[in-house]
Amino acid sequence: MKIALAQLNYHIGNLPYNVAKIKNGILRAKSEGAELVAFSELSVCGYPPKDLLLHDGFIRACEDAVKDIAQECKGIAAIVGAPARNEKHKGKSLFNSAFLLVDGQIAAQVNKTLLPFYDVFDEYRYFEPAEENELMEYKSVKIALTVCEDVWNERPLNDRYLYKHSSLETLCTPDTNCIINIAASPFSYIHSEERKQIFETSASRYKLPFFYVNALGANTDLIFDGGSMVIASNEGIVDEMSYFTEEISIYELSGKSVKPVKPQKRSHPQNHIERIYHALVLGIRDYFQKNNLTSAVLGLSGGIDSALVLALTAEALGSKNVHAVMLPSRYTSEESLKDAGELVMNIGCSYDSISIEPGINAAYSSLADAFKGRQADVTEENIQSRMRALLLMAISNKMGYLLLNTSNKSELATGYGTLYGDMSGALSVLGDVYKTQVYELARYINTIKKGLIPSNIITRPPSAELKPNQKDTDSLPDYDILDKVLHEYIEMEKSQIDIKVDGASPELVKRIVDMVNRNEYKRKQSPPILRVSPKAFGSGRRMPIVAKYI
Amino acid sequence: MKIALAQLNYHIGNLPYNVAKIKNGILRAKSEGAELVAFSELSVCGYPPKDLLLHDGFIRACEDAVKDIAQECKGIAAIVGAPARNEKHKGKSLFNSAFLLVDGQIAAQVNKTLLPFYDVFDEYRYFEPAEENELMEYKSVKIALTVCEDVWNERPLNDRYLYKHSSLETLCTPDTNCIINIAASPFSYIHSEERKQIFETSASRYKLPFFYVNALGANTDLIFDGGSMVIASNEGIVDEMSYFTEEISIYELSGKSVKPVKPQKRSHPQNHIERIYHALVLGIRDYFQKNNLTSAVLGLSGGIDSALVLALTAEALGSKNVHAVMLPSRYTSEESLKDAGELVMNIGCSYDSISIEPGINAAYSSLADAFKGRQADVTEENIQSRMRALLLMAISNKMGYLLLNTSNKSELATGYGTLYGDMSGALSVLGDVYKTQVYELARYINTIKKGLIPSNIITRPPSAELKPNQKDTDSLPDYDILDKVLHEYIEMEKSQIDIKVDGASPELVKRIVDMVNRNEYKRKQSPPILRVSPKAFGSGRRMPIVAKYI
Repeated sequence: MKIALAQLNYHIGNLPYNVAKIKNGILRAKSEGAELVAFSELSVCGYPPKDLLLHDGFIRACEDAVKDIAQECKGIAAIVGAPARNEKHKGKSLFNSAFLLVDGQIAAQVNKTLLPFYDVFDEYRYFEPAEENELMEYKSVKIALTVCEDVWNERPLNDRYLYKHSSLETLCTPDTNCIINIAASPFSYIHSEERKQIFETSASRYKLPFFYVNALGANTDLIFDGGSMVIASNEGIVDEMSYFTEEISIYELSGKSVKPVKPQKRSHPQNHIERIYHALVLGIRDYFQKNNLTSAVLGLSGGIDSALVLALTAEALGSKNVHAVMLPSRYTSEESLKDAGELVMNIGCSYDSISIEPGINAAYSSLADAFKGRQADVTEENIQSRMRALLLMAISNKMGYLLLNTSNKSELATGYGTLYGDMSGALSVLGDVYKTQVYELARYINTIKKGLIPSNIITRPPSAELKPNQKDTDSLPDYDILDKVLHEYIEMEKSQIDIKVDGASPELVKRIVDMVNRNEYKRKQSPPILRVSPKAFGSGRRMPIVAKYI
Repeated sequence: MKIALAQLNYHIGNLPYNVAKIKNGILRAKSEGAELVAFSELSVCGYPPKDLLLHDGFIRACEDAVKDIAQECKGIAAIVGAPARNEKHKGKSLFNSAFLLVDGQIAAQVNKTLLPFYDVFDEYRYFEPAEENELMEYKSVKIALTVCEDVWNERPLNDRYLYKHSSLETLCTPDTNCIINIAASPFSYIHSEERKQIFETSASRYKLPFFYVNALGANTDLIFDGGSMVIASNEGIVDEMSYFTEEISIYELSGKSVKPVKPQKRSHPQNHIERIYHALVLGIRDYFQKNNLTSAVLGLSGGIDSALVLALTAEALGSKNVHAVMLPSRYTSEESLKDAGELVMNIGCSYDSISIEPGINAAYSSLADAFKGRQADVTEENIQSRMRALLLMAISNKMGYLLLNTSNKSELATGYGTLYGDMSGALSVLGDVYKTQVYELARYINTIKKGLIPSNIITRPPSAELKPNQKDTDSLPDYDILDKVLHEYIEMEKSQIDIKVDGASPELVKRIVDMVNRNEYKRKQSPPILRVSPKAFGSGRRMPIVAKYI
């Protein structure tokens, strides 16, 4: 049988758009000879639909959409993902389902059994787990049809199986011909490796060909990287589809053997930094496209974070759709002005410079009475940062450009940023990228676009330039050490006392962890953050705000 | 047997504080003759501990704390709530447990069976449900010990039982002597009524005395109102403890009969508005106390929202700890200045007035080149709002006062507010209070504190005063109708097409629902909101940002 995998980019809640895209995929797969085409998890409504699932009208619309798609299934069958009602009167009211559509009808329905509810996942909030797993049959091929997490309980994590049983153990009988998994598996820079490992293990354990179709595209913070693949039980990965771009590929399944109908050479991102680069570009592009917006504005400082965001945004939207604004003050160095000027020349975007001096001087004098007799402190630094945000948001409002945020993960973690100041913006591009990774990304960009980011921006010591001769290291430990401690605390979820990093004394570890905890309130109000790591700030990390941390 | 219920206010993660408070409760209960004292759910660590539960050091500290508390249990037994490890290698690594502590030892452990995962609850994220329910025995009294949600599957909701079985059905055998439920049940203005109904139903169905001990106090957005109670199977509610204040009460259980050892007359809040008033005062007070802060600053406009927040904050913190700042512009009316002045006189708090004119004029002229040839629009209104926030945050930073947000739920719902402007603040006091409820609260305050809020503030038509002769109704429907439509959409989770409200045409309903959906991105960046309704913006309502809503 010829099976197509359709790795497409859906728009959450936009059922007419998703239905048209799926129908078009069905027609294309059929015209290229496929007998069955599989789309990703919840493809009909986009993933994650979140609390839209609690609205009955939304469920009705999804039901109609599935029936509508079935009409296109003539001479080809399709597997699509959509929410379905649980008709029983006990348990959650919905299932996360895969539908087999044949000859204009829903021929079979399979419900997801293992529902993830960790990190960014909330599936138990909406769905009842399936109690029974049955094989699905089409044209005498018996398929272990599974939905995403269903195939993830095949190996213990920290010596623990998260779920009490394995769907595959039940479904992979002597009769079974293949496994199909429809997924919406959010990107992190290590996730594609994890996937390959666990799928190869499963294909080999159950001695079955394994088809994996993933979603593509970014939905606010979550990025889906594609990388759909086909694994043969005895030869490992037979084909690995594109990353970060839509694709439909067709495979010939015969017995236990499977091969692509038209073998392709593709080059895949090779390392963490390359993957993060493509993920961020896709994340920015989709945020704009799916919001029907074209143009971005961002504040340049002459530093590396805003330079990197500018380069990424120009790649995502085209340089004519990016507007860079320098907002100098008395503390802005000639070096910063020169570096920023050189950068925008290289990028080829529009550039404005608006001094914040009149604004901050007005604010200082308005506050002079109230502040009489008090020393200058961080207040005056914050005023500068907030005045910049006020001017950038005014440009955003007047011109219809979306303000992009340039804070990095090291800053967000330690609270080294001003709420309503440099923490402003519609989307945080680098909020899941540590400062050390910011440098790596900048260097990577300079390898693929020779010298795009002026080398002085990469080599000079970082400074917020909010007072004379300020350096980040006045307030923060060296980023090399800081980022390692942060990684242990945030990504590895170690307790402070369990964190061991070369060069970091227990006192320094405590100081860093305290900074992270103390600034939960700031992160509560941060823009959505493009998630690229296994543990990003945002919906995947839910820490209390009013609490004493130990 | 004499059973005490200890309804106390815990600090999340502050184990030494919670342990000391629990030990003190044990000693007090013992000194008054109790043989067993029950504390609320997860009392050892505070509720909800959220992702602190993912850190092993935190779990170790909770384990040590339980053992430490056990040392105080001499001549009295205690029931406390804490996380416990799941020693099996399948399933989540923790249980949400109740421990019976007797004679310095852990005598029994009961694990929560029904784990809520809706609205603000995420318990499946951390906990494995108990598979077995066993009776707990102490001094020959057989107790159906349950944790919060365990007793909530006793009646269907919308014709559906959320869980597949009932813990009470298993636990309430002919041998059982009573039910004890330890809870952390977040306040909403209808929740105490729901509780009473379901507990009376259970006590009567299972013909058993029912002891319910709830948490007290606010933890960021969630408020716990106490209202612990004892129900006899044949006579309904025997005693209803205080709301919004700590209390320990002792009851004599003999056979099926139960009565308070020292009967007390208490007056409980009688209606939604009274409850919301007390909840908000507690919510503000605990946010400050648990953050070790004393003073608040807020911007007065002369309007009703800021007047109400000022009155609530003065009640919560004392009027000497509240600092009101008027930030007039050319559009601020004499009436607003006069009303605000009268209000601060009545409240007796400090008052400052700082014109935003120098600041906004500086901003306008800085932007003049960039905006050349463009009409004034909402940009200029937003600049005023953001300049106010900049000055308020400067006062907050310089003085160490916390800025309180004054946006109401109708504004947050419709996006009638400026991000980084009037949407700023550490805590949103009214973000779960519709404008029509804001008026009711103001009138209620004027009945308990005669004329505190000048009547002109309550009677004049609301205006943002960001341009000449502006009224809220220029941009929004009448609040009476608006709030009803919002309630249907937000609290009732109806789809747009299913919303029917007198006076609202289908077009108006669509316009309102579109406003709500379009402004999800603004609410993402709002401060935490004190939750008083069954469906607040925040962790209980998780809508996608980049999406097309239908």
